[in-house]
Amino acid sequence: MKKIEKYSRNYFMPPVKSMKWSEKEYITEAPAWCSVDLRDGNQALVVPMNLEEKLEYFQLLVDIGFKEIEVGFPAASDTEYAFLRTLIEKNLIPDDVTIQVLTQAREHIIRKTFESLQGVSKAIVHLYNSTSVAQREQVFKKSKEEIISIAITGAKLLKKYALETEGNFTFQYSPESFTGTEIEFALEICNNVLDEWQPTATEKVIINLPATVSMSMPHVYASQIEYMSDHLKYRDNVIVSVHPHNDRGTGVADAELGMLAGADRVEGTLFGNGERTGNVDVVTLALNMFSHGVDPQLNLENIPEIIAVFERMTKMKVSERHPYGGELVFTAFSGSHQDAISKGIKWREGHEDKYWTVPYLLIDPKDIGREYEGDIIRINSQSGKGGIAYVLGQKYGLDLPTEMRESFGYSVKNISDRLHKELVPKDIYDIFVKEYVNIEKPFAFINYQFKSYDDYHTTVKIKVNNDVQEFEGIGNGRLDAISNIIQNKLDIKYTNLVYKEHALEIGSGSQAVSYVGITSEDGSVYWGCGIDMDIMASSIKALFSAVNKLISVEATPVK
Amino acid sequence: MKKIEKYSRNYFMPPVKSMKWSEKEYITEAPAWCSVDLRDGNQALVVPMNLEEKLEYFQLLVDIGFKEIEVGFPAASDTEYAFLRTLIEKNLIPDDVTIQVLTQAREHIIRKTFESLQGVSKAIVHLYNSTSVAQREQVFKKSKEEIISIAITGAKLLKKYALETEGNFTFQYSPESFTGTEIEFALEICNNVLDEWQPTATEKVIINLPATVSMSMPHVYASQIEYMSDHLKYRDNVIVSVHPHNDRGTGVADAELGMLAGADRVEGTLFGNGERTGNVDVVTLALNMFSHGVDPQLNLENIPEIIAVFERMTKMKVSERHPYGGELVFTAFSGSHQDAISKGIKWREGHEDKYWTVPYLLIDPKDIGREYEGDIIRINSQSGKGGIAYVLGQKYGLDLPTEMRESFGYSVKNISDRLHKELVPKDIYDIFVKEYVNIEKPFAFINYQFKSYDDYHTTVKIKVNNDVQEFEGIGNGRLDAISNIIQNKLDIKYTNLVYKEHALEIGSGSQAVSYVGITSEDGSVYWGCGIDMDIMASSIKALFSAVNKLISVEATPVK
Repeated sequence: MKKIEKYSRNYFMPPVKSMKWSEKEYITEAPAWCSVDLRDGNQALVVPMNLEEKLEYFQLLVDIGFKEIEVGFPAASDTEYAFLRTLIEKNLIPDDVTIQVLTQAREHIIRKTFESLQGVSKAIVHLYNSTSVAQREQVFKKSKEEIISIAITGAKLLKKYALETEGNFTFQYSPESFTGTEIEFALEICNNVLDEWQPTATEKVIINLPATVSMSMPHVYASQIEYMSDHLKYRDNVIVSVHPHNDRGTGVADAELGMLAGADRVEGTLFGNGERTGNVDVVTLALNMFSHGVDPQLNLENIPEIIAVFERMTKMKVSERHPYGGELVFTAFSGSHQDAISKGIKWREGHEDKYWTVPYLLIDPKDIGREYEGDIIRINSQSGKGGIAYVLGQKYGLDLPTEMRESFGYSVKNISDRLHKELVPKDIYDIFVKEYVNIEKPFAFINYQFKSYDDYHTTVKIKVNNDVQEFEGIGNGRLDAISNIIQNKLDIKYTNLVYKEHALEIGSGSQAVSYVGITSEDGSVYWGCGIDMDIMASSIKALFSAVNKLISVEATPVK
Repeated sequence: MKKIEKYSRNYFMPPVKSMKWSEKEYITEAPAWCSVDLRDGNQALVVPMNLEEKLEYFQLLVDIGFKEIEVGFPAASDTEYAFLRTLIEKNLIPDDVTIQVLTQAREHIIRKTFESLQGVSKAIVHLYNSTSVAQREQVFKKSKEEIISIAITGAKLLKKYALETEGNFTFQYSPESFTGTEIEFALEICNNVLDEWQPTATEKVIINLPATVSMSMPHVYASQIEYMSDHLKYRDNVIVSVHPHNDRGTGVADAELGMLAGADRVEGTLFGNGERTGNVDVVTLALNMFSHGVDPQLNLENIPEIIAVFERMTKMKVSERHPYGGELVFTAFSGSHQDAISKGIKWREGHEDKYWTVPYLLIDPKDIGREYEGDIIRINSQSGKGGIAYVLGQKYGLDLPTEMRESFGYSVKNISDRLHKELVPKDIYDIFVKEYVNIEKPFAFINYQFKSYDDYHTTVKIKVNNDVQEFEGIGNGRLDAISNIIQNKLDIKYTNLVYKEHALEIGSGSQAVSYVGITSEDGSVYWGCGIDMDIMASSIKALFSAVNKLISVEATPVK
């Protein structure tokens, strides 16, 4: 590649070999987990969360079992201030959960930070300043001594305001951009801060060593952590914390080797959300421990539910191949893999006392609320978004609304289960057409006529049992007029009509596809699809398909 | 978590400490790269590539600079057989590229594999059999001796058929499921195969040690590689290869530490496509080396172009936070990060002789064909898919067609550049409305009337310069009828009308949004959007908006 001469290694090796950690084989107990989803994660979103979303996300983190949750930078952001005040004033912080707030080392910011904490029973106050060569030289234009002085001043101010504020406060210091800092300078600045804080066995201090930008191979980061851990003053009363980012795709390895090297605590996020390439993914770290028979002390037994909330709040997507959470990671497409898995699962039935060793499946997907999916059952409700969307979308050009895909997934799964047969893409398409497209019983749409533009006055011809009748009605729009006719003249009740349309092929002579969903009085949602040369007719056919499905189900006697 | 007692560590430590690799700091030269995109990657796709797609993907791999490319399992799959024959018969394999084919250790499969290679000048023939405890016990129900015998038989057959077939053949052996195999047994089986093949300095053999399922922490995998590398017979004439998967999120670390531990070669895929969580991502590995000033010997100078082909061929998406390739990884949302980056870039202008050290940017995005995006220029053409889609979608409920987003991105970028101003979401929305929605000059759509269902006979009222005129026409559909009127009666020429519609809010009383794109005679694409209570009217307004944009541009005299 060109430009190679522009680069070198901008990290710093410890002055002595620090590889004792490599004698250890695996992580034998869970670290203290700190979620930074609501701060580092949130600030990296294209559309950051609003107050209600943050409250829901906070509850998710509590439910998963995080005992330390960074909630923001209250002195720097009004919305984070409001969020923190809501948590405190509405008493939403459980007794066994400690919130954490971030602050720069400046007096007015520290003062406002403690103001924002009024009334909290306990909190971690997280002080940071940037220490790397690049930041000192290019951004702050300050000497090492000046940078140390900023940290000491901040440390003193935290002590002062903590004394003046009611509540139990734990102090945390981060030499931000640690990975670009000379390791001995990082040690010096941390020890200066520790000298100010004088940690004790009952008032421990957290020293957090972020891979703000991951710059080295993971064993180098681990050796940096080991060196710091070995040389920090008051070590018994210091909690060493890591905060890896994923710039080199090694965030998980950085955290894991960092734990072997002495880290007692890990800051990260669900599914690795966060600045740029993201923070380390706590879900992966925890389930990696789980796969080794070590309890991660987090409740990840229903990953699909966690993902649903995560995706709704962050508007991010957990990618198909993301460890443990990705849609495709418990799917086997290769025949030899499918064969080995099914033999392994069968073997296990007679050996349930043995450890989990089924080929190609690191853990039993059931233990985290998922299912193994061979190609046969790949097209099912859970994998609907993956399999069905791809098959109908890529092969047949049908782009179903998300909620409809799920509903269709259940139909396919039922049929697949009943037939005990592998469904190929053509089968999926045929099932879709049979179940959803242009359904004409009991009501078949014949045609419609548009009478007036003011109130969308429309007449529609409908065939019921070989008897064609004409109805008329008005509405807020053309489809609404037809919908009103169905509700008022045919006496069929539903609410929440949703629709979506697209062209089946490019070119104005191509067909239009519409999808309509309606909600029955008992809250069930029924979907229909209409395909027609005319956009409007496709919408009406979709509506009639949905209505016909609703009627058929309601007409079936309960067994 | 529940079920923790079900798990333990199913991998095997080397019998002696094998951590010499930890003395090394970084990778000093590129390994031999082997792409397995067309085999391992392709077999894990929901919709595998067809022949044409494979040929295009092969060309992409050649252009990037892969010298070894696994093209499939020709004896097991007709499409892979046809692909291989096409490569050979159409002479599509460059002289400096070696293709690789996979085979099981069974005579009829090996025979067919060599048949499929007729006429090739050189190839790697990759033999494997599964060796792990679980596979031996649960799947094959064979003893260690029987498993060794399968490998030896296969090795002999490779020699035999290679002698009978014209061309230069390199042999490769993989103890599949290596990570679940007792390390001394893995060594024994590999050395047995090597004894058959008798590698020499001019006829080297590849021993590939896959993390078929990644089971251990990355330093443990590296120690396994080091042990194997230290104890393989004929080591000078053996190329040790790794093939990591990403089950634990540590595929990159496994490959990197594996290289320090003795691996000369890496098998992986672009962006980590492959079974389940995927293979190791070669792009990340290569750019990690690049960031250390080591030439990866791959051409990754235009990542956006590589991603475009990758996504088109695989139907997979490179996720937003994927190292180097993800949409958001060169974006800074936090004010302090933006500030540091802009100071760092400014500082660099006077220090171009220094190594790249700009804060928060591991490498200069320009070196891989990308741009740094602060929040200010986040909403631009390149980030369009990210920023604009989110802003218009999440805040305003507008789901633009993909091609329209790009076009809109350019408008926004131009305006942002001109104003030298940060655009907030409301600005973006206002620009969109002004540029695309319900454009009424020179032609304003008034209303339309549908006359007959057979030929979509329609009349439409149009206002031109305060003069309302009525036209009529027919078509294959309602919108087509209107489009024909515009083309025939107003004499405006365009082709390729594409449209998309959706509801703006749920409820049948809500508004409909339509998007229409048309292509002018000079090949430019013009987009319009229509919003109306009536679906049909929204489509027509979208069409008129697009037509009006086309006319305005064509009416502008060329400067």
